[in-house]
Amino acid sequence: MDDRPAHVVIVGGGFAGLWAARALARAPVRITLLDRGNHHLFQPLLYQVATAGLSAPDIAAPLRRILRRQRNVEVQMATVSRVDAQAREVELEHAGGRRRLGYDYLVLATGATHAYFGNEHWAPHAPGLKTLDDALELRRRLLLAFERAEAATDPAERDAWLSFAIIGGGPTGVELAGTLAEIARHTLEREFHNIDPARARVRLVEAGPRVLSAFPEDLSRKARRQLEQLGVEVLTGAPVEDIDARGYRCDGRFVPARTVVWAAGVSASPLGSCLGVALDRAGRVKVRPDLSVPGHPEIFVAGDLAAVERPDGRPVPGVAPAAKQMGRYVARRIRARLGGRAVPDRFAYRDYGNLATIGRMAAVVELGAWRLSGVLAWWFWLLAHLFFLIGFRNRLVVLLNWSVAYWTHQRAARIILGGDDRSDRD
Amino acid sequence: MDDRPAHVVIVGGGFAGLWAARALARAPVRITLLDRGNHHLFQPLLYQVATAGLSAPDIAAPLRRILRRQRNVEVQMATVSRVDAQAREVELEHAGGRRRLGYDYLVLATGATHAYFGNEHWAPHAPGLKTLDDALELRRRLLLAFERAEAATDPAERDAWLSFAIIGGGPTGVELAGTLAEIARHTLEREFHNIDPARARVRLVEAGPRVLSAFPEDLSRKARRQLEQLGVEVLTGAPVEDIDARGYRCDGRFVPARTVVWAAGVSASPLGSCLGVALDRAGRVKVRPDLSVPGHPEIFVAGDLAAVERPDGRPVPGVAPAAKQMGRYVARRIRARLGGRAVPDRFAYRDYGNLATIGRMAAVVELGAWRLSGVLAWWFWLLAHLFFLIGFRNRLVVLLNWSVAYWTHQRAARIILGGDDRSDRD
Repeated sequence: MDDRPAHVVIVGGGFAGLWAARALARAPVRITLLDRGNHHLFQPLLYQVATAGLSAPDIAAPLRRILRRQRNVEVQMATVSRVDAQAREVELEHAGGRRRLGYDYLVLATGATHAYFGNEHWAPHAPGLKTLDDALELRRRLLLAFERAEAATDPAERDAWLSFAIIGGGPTGVELAGTLAEIARHTLEREFHNIDPARARVRLVEAGPRVLSAFPEDLSRKARRQLEQLGVEVLTGAPVEDIDARGYRCDGRFVPARTVVWAAGVSASPLGSCLGVALDRAGRVKVRPDLSVPGHPEIFVAGDLAAVERPDGRPVPGVAPAAKQMGRYVARRIRARLGGRAVPDRFAYRDYGNLATIGRMAAVVELGAWRLSGVLAWWFWLLAHLFFLIGFRNRLVVLLNWSVAYWTHQRAARIILGGDDRSDRD
Repeated sequence: MDDRPAHVVIVGGGFAGLWAARALARAPVRITLLDRGNHHLFQPLLYQVATAGLSAPDIAAPLRRILRRQRNVEVQMATVSRVDAQAREVELEHAGGRRRLGYDYLVLATGATHAYFGNEHWAPHAPGLKTLDDALELRRRLLLAFERAEAATDPAERDAWLSFAIIGGGPTGVELAGTLAEIARHTLEREFHNIDPARARVRLVEAGPRVLSAFPEDLSRKARRQLEQLGVEVLTGAPVEDIDARGYRCDGRFVPARTVVWAAGVSASPLGSCLGVALDRAGRVKVRPDLSVPGHPEIFVAGDLAAVERPDGRPVPGVAPAAKQMGRYVARRIRARLGGRAVPDRFAYRDYGNLATIGRMAAVVELGAWRLSGVLAWWFWLLAHLFFLIGFRNRLVVLLNWSVAYWTHQRAARIILGGDDRSDRD
């Protein structure tokens, strides 16, 4: 071995990758953090950008800025196209072309993206929500739909523009449906002449038997009731059979809906498949208990790209706290290998609980045996998210936007960018 | 005449159109306000979106929201493609297709856009700044340039990415150049490994003999000095001869610059040419002294689309206060025709002065005989712009962003959206 510090390459600046980089701040390593964007994204609030409550920069911060005081890390904006585990190199694509970058340790934390499970032709008609660009595209579609309804002369056409479907009753679907119902009922009140936005139909379509299936049954029931009070029609046991530009098919029946949002499933980033090891059905890497890749103790996988089980056999969920914990654990494992303090050889997920917001003053919270729903749960959710948001300025701006929204029902970012083209125009 | 109130169609929701609509609030008319976007834009702060200081929704508000309490106005998001002055109809293109809309009075306030005066092939290499989409594209280019420089392996390539040129020394050019110099010298400090952002060269290239030619000569001189103190290289008497993806040609010399911004000229919206009346060189409609169109007393033109002279022969400038005054004047003329109070038959521009900001604590202000430059002028500029910004929330968010930027040199919106493609990639 030469004298140079070990080179740790981290791919992905999300919760797992960024927390891994930070936890290596005092380690005798040099770190290269690669991300295809220039920012860390606070994904739990992404739905608020999609629903015009926050603007994109409110929930994102430049990775360079976050890490500027950490001298052992270099940030590069680049897409990793391949991992060559034999040569211990990753292949980058960036502005200057392709190049290869060697590593001593590799942390893969490229997360997940929405997936249509063989129905990729649905994508243009039912966009998903994983990046800021996705969120801005959704915002455009949601706001334009009301404009289209207002301009429509044919009543059936108008109704189709006022018909919204969110496919998938997980946390993202529930948040989007609840917020959209609030927009239709309150935010747009008295602003239109030819339509009554409050007559918009917001349907939440879930294939399984209940919404928020990761929560206990009684909280799912309460979430459903809260959604219905906000004006959302909740359909469970309703797998979607087809989606096109005019609507979707479910239970053999075609439902006109010019705006369909996909929140029904994610699959892991394709980078995992370069490793030549077993993946689970969602494309996640089946890692060893210490999050390393079988046969490659120098490669770790953290965050949504990793398939990890808890002692009781349940999977570690794809949530921000789990990603941060994995990132930190991987950093400690690397430090231990470099002569630092020993670390248990099994990642232990510490489950602090589960929160989901539903809409104005509606949420569900599960903290061990402690369960909350309604207004109190909503306040808890709000404070928790504000607390975990990165950056002093972001917190203040978000708090201000939320306060104004709370009192006025107004939303800060109701701006249609990019003209009124829709990619699914027909 | 029938009993229905007169129908006033206003095209454009900028300062002229929006102020005309508001000033007709109590008039016995029904108003249709048409805009191709859904928002009113506070254009004086657009350069701050382009330079990542503010996010797009901070300086824009939905037209429907602004006008929701004014019951005699209907907002439609639509593009007006033609005016048929004989039939008294405008032709709309919107979501539902084309249609025609009749009017009793027409107010054209579609403003201006940047113009390349016969060099339209420069447009992809030197984008301009008139809309929020323009501003976000500029932000992307400015931020990506530093990323590209960081990734470059060839020194000449790196220098070309660190070379910025702003073409045009008017207020927009001066604002962009000063702010960009601040970003390079302060905002990005210590964030890069392979480059020193402070070594970026920001050139402001003006064809005429001085920057800010609308100001008195001594203020132009002071503005130039302030720009140079901020690190901008100011070139005057330097008409640009060519622009391509790699740089620009000026004085027979090619200057490498991967990021060129066009702030050198605007021309009026093409709608004026439908009227069959005389236009000036910039395509503006030569209106009568009461802002009506010769031969069509029922059509008014307000804002940047109107070519109006002051009593001393100087043109009314294309600034926000002039547009608002024209909008209000036109509204009063229409009210007078409908039996309201008589109004002078000549629009009189009230010149409150001229402000231009240059960068951190640098600005010039001319208020009649009163002239200011430097820190005091900057505070004056800041308070004036905050005061005129629409919306309580926007003011607070902008104030907060500015305060944080002032103390930390940080900018709130340093987010690259849309991946790292550049339309001028070569």
